[in-house]
Amino acid sequence: MANHQQIFDQLCDHVRETAKLENINDLLGWDERVMLPEQAGAYRADQITLLAGIVHDRNTDPRLGDWLESLSDCPLTEEANSPAEATIRRIRSDYLKQVKLPKRLVEEFSHSRVIGQQTWVKARADNNFSTFEPILDKLISLSREMAEAIGYEGEQYDALLDFYEPEAKTAQVRQVLETLKDQLVPLVAEIKDSGRSPNIDLLKRSYPISLQEQFSIAAATKIGFDFTSGRLDVTHHPFCTTLGPHDCRITTRYDENFFPSAFFSTLHEAGHGIYEQGLSKDWYGLPPGASASLGVHESQSRLWENIVGRSYAFWSHFYPEVKKLFPAALGDVPMSDFHFAINEVTPSLIRVEADEATYNLHIIIRFELEQALLSGDLQVKDLPGAWNEKYTQQLGITPPNDADGCLQDVHWSAGLMGYFPTYSLGNIYSAQLMEQAHEDLGDLEGMFAVGEFSPLLGWLRENVHQPGQCYPGDQLVERVCGDPIDSAPLIRYLRAKLGPLYGIQH
Amino acid sequence: MANHQQIFDQLCDHVRETAKLENINDLLGWDERVMLPEQAGAYRADQITLLAGIVHDRNTDPRLGDWLESLSDCPLTEEANSPAEATIRRIRSDYLKQVKLPKRLVEEFSHSRVIGQQTWVKARADNNFSTFEPILDKLISLSREMAEAIGYEGEQYDALLDFYEPEAKTAQVRQVLETLKDQLVPLVAEIKDSGRSPNIDLLKRSYPISLQEQFSIAAATKIGFDFTSGRLDVTHHPFCTTLGPHDCRITTRYDENFFPSAFFSTLHEAGHGIYEQGLSKDWYGLPPGASASLGVHESQSRLWENIVGRSYAFWSHFYPEVKKLFPAALGDVPMSDFHFAINEVTPSLIRVEADEATYNLHIIIRFELEQALLSGDLQVKDLPGAWNEKYTQQLGITPPNDADGCLQDVHWSAGLMGYFPTYSLGNIYSAQLMEQAHEDLGDLEGMFAVGEFSPLLGWLRENVHQPGQCYPGDQLVERVCGDPIDSAPLIRYLRAKLGPLYGIQH
Repeated sequence: MANHQQIFDQLCDHVRETAKLENINDLLGWDERVMLPEQAGAYRADQITLLAGIVHDRNTDPRLGDWLESLSDCPLTEEANSPAEATIRRIRSDYLKQVKLPKRLVEEFSHSRVIGQQTWVKARADNNFSTFEPILDKLISLSREMAEAIGYEGEQYDALLDFYEPEAKTAQVRQVLETLKDQLVPLVAEIKDSGRSPNIDLLKRSYPISLQEQFSIAAATKIGFDFTSGRLDVTHHPFCTTLGPHDCRITTRYDENFFPSAFFSTLHEAGHGIYEQGLSKDWYGLPPGASASLGVHESQSRLWENIVGRSYAFWSHFYPEVKKLFPAALGDVPMSDFHFAINEVTPSLIRVEADEATYNLHIIIRFELEQALLSGDLQVKDLPGAWNEKYTQQLGITPPNDADGCLQDVHWSAGLMGYFPTYSLGNIYSAQLMEQAHEDLGDLEGMFAVGEFSPLLGWLRENVHQPGQCYPGDQLVERVCGDPIDSAPLIRYLRAKLGPLYGIQH
Repeated sequence: MANHQQIFDQLCDHVRETAKLENINDLLGWDERVMLPEQAGAYRADQITLLAGIVHDRNTDPRLGDWLESLSDCPLTEEANSPAEATIRRIRSDYLKQVKLPKRLVEEFSHSRVIGQQTWVKARADNNFSTFEPILDKLISLSREMAEAIGYEGEQYDALLDFYEPEAKTAQVRQVLETLKDQLVPLVAEIKDSGRSPNIDLLKRSYPISLQEQFSIAAATKIGFDFTSGRLDVTHHPFCTTLGPHDCRITTRYDENFFPSAFFSTLHEAGHGIYEQGLSKDWYGLPPGASASLGVHESQSRLWENIVGRSYAFWSHFYPEVKKLFPAALGDVPMSDFHFAINEVTPSLIRVEADEATYNLHIIIRFELEQALLSGDLQVKDLPGAWNEKYTQQLGITPPNDADGCLQDVHWSAGLMGYFPTYSLGNIYSAQLMEQAHEDLGDLEGMFAVGEFSPLLGWLRENVHQPGQCYPGDQLVERVCGDPIDSAPLIRYLRAKLGPLYGIQH
């Protein structure tokens, strides 16, 4: 019998080489969304499909099955959650999933997601849902087919959710989100009833784009994003993607007449990027060098974007600088007005620009709708109506068109069904982690106010980034914070910040 | 026996799919030179190597040999230079070459070229040849090894030249370049002795980069580069690369205080791009949809950059526009001064910024040196000395440092040995083609002066672009012009333009 360590090394070499090819496909995707000439879409879709097929062949290589079999119950798996045990466990779980997916389905899905995104960009620009309907219908059928091929114990949705939040279950997520909703609805109502509101016109003055870019880069650098291992570019729908151990790319979009749009999306994507840049380089391409889950990923982006980036302490440090950069817009604006404006709570149409209190209501709507689409309870053609009805009921606001309604997000066009709830998990985790960081590190606000972000960064590196995928997302957070997933810290955080601003209970 | 058409289709499908993967590697290369974060180089080199290995496996797939055997002497090959015949002929020639190259050598070469380019960028910036010496030495050894593996009838250099100028022979190229040199040396001497010189300070005034970019894009669009199927970006060493049938990317570099640098390099790369964009889409990925040779490629870039772009007629159309864009720099400059300045002839250090009369002397130096490096007559460590000696002898000017000497070009760092002479072939072809275009189309200058470039573009599309690789470069030009390769039209063209400017014989 061959030496376990040798087999383990063969397994790792194979998976690392596959990661190199997957990262090439990530580059094809980044370039498609950031650089691709108008007419080049169809050929790019073919290329991504071709490479996805090659990757699928490698992911289902029978040697993987042999290696994994030789490594079951071997000494390397004895220490639970050790890098070696997690490597074998996660690769096995992925392999068992991949071999259930026919190559035809993988290629068709891969091709449809590229076409889906290209179609979505046009449909959204033209505010024309009907041109998007057929490909969305196809993506939902393919998602259903994938869920059935993979199999599940509880609900069909579990099989898809598992891609993004390994080991999470729909029933539990549903319960967590319903509890959250029950606490958010009264909070939003109290704020509405307070009669107070900030002057947000000051955010809509002229903010020259080149200066927004300069300031966004400076702030992202300050909180810890490393531009020698990354870039910031412009796209339709901001995202972060990792193309290699030293190549993490974030994107944003600029609006000259709305400061928060580019700035907070840059902080958000930088938060994702800082997590990626903080993963173990030694384990790059393998589970211990990969992010734990999308929920944990989102906890990092929302932590930097909101809990840090919209705090009074953060702006105590940055406001003098931003005032100097935009004297025409902010010369006469006291910092407290600016701080209230960037923390305005008001029901709105666009998720990515929603405030922290209403944001999760946007997510819950999507979570409910995608379950209905997958189960067939909702037909794709009826999506715009169902969307608008939910917005009217739950947020008290009706989208005037589909571009600002059900066409606003890229996710479904990219075949990402089961992805949305991870955003809310991330918000919940971020508040749990931040409460624990305060307990461990003390006066974080005092540090932010003098531009010191490295104590928090170091704490996140050690507790959240370095463990990689050795623990599932919820276990990782529980391990750091001592408690299982709990929306109470998020509500406490929101009431502590918004209470004084709106004069409501905190 | 299987139907020939079916086998031909299988062959074409295989080769087209390989082209999709090669285009992915082209994207990896483009991104590396235009976008890649500082620390991401090593991983990118691994990715390019990995994909080059996959491509090599496909290029040497034994099925190719079987298909080609079944197609020898079949009816599809009866019509010489037809698309089908050229497809089979060129694929066979490439296949016979590829199977002679061990995969180890292909991967080592592919990896070394990426490291070579990364090392070169730093070595050039630091003006430090010694850091570049080891990898250059390795690239030359590998090139030699490749030439020996492929084999040759005449000289070892033939095997490398054939990659860039299929079917060309070193002895013939040497003779053509020597004849050219014999005519250029007296021309340059006459110009020097004329005592005249333009005022080139006017080109060194302040030309804001964003306006240079705007004007470069406008001019490239006007002559025919399609930005819905292409892009213009910034890099160290301008180049053009094709990533798909509708995705051609050109690059430039800006110098705020030297107008010609970005403008003429953009026109040059746009000329390459216009050729690529004019190739048959139906045959994309196959020889009839590929460029004939690098010499023919260069004929297109130099034709638009120089014969068109530095003509009095071209600026009769564009000068009012450029004057309006740069009033501070050009407000007081008569067009004749500007035209003389952009056509200054003077021995200089940097090839890509050399004038049309001395340019080919730069090429001849490189052609001589790379032959000596390959044969072993010249050691890599002695390259800087040999380079400087030749510049002193042949151009009367001695590089003050290696950054502006033997480190100025990217080619050798990218393992492109045998590439340089195609630049001079391109200059010669461009003048031959332009004489014929005048004969066929009449008063081209009259058209340029009113901004009409489409008659010339249409003529090039039909005569040069559409035939693709159905003919070798020299045969294609001979077919269009009626004469074999001949440097006389280039000398006639130079004397016709420079004669009046310098008051010398024309």
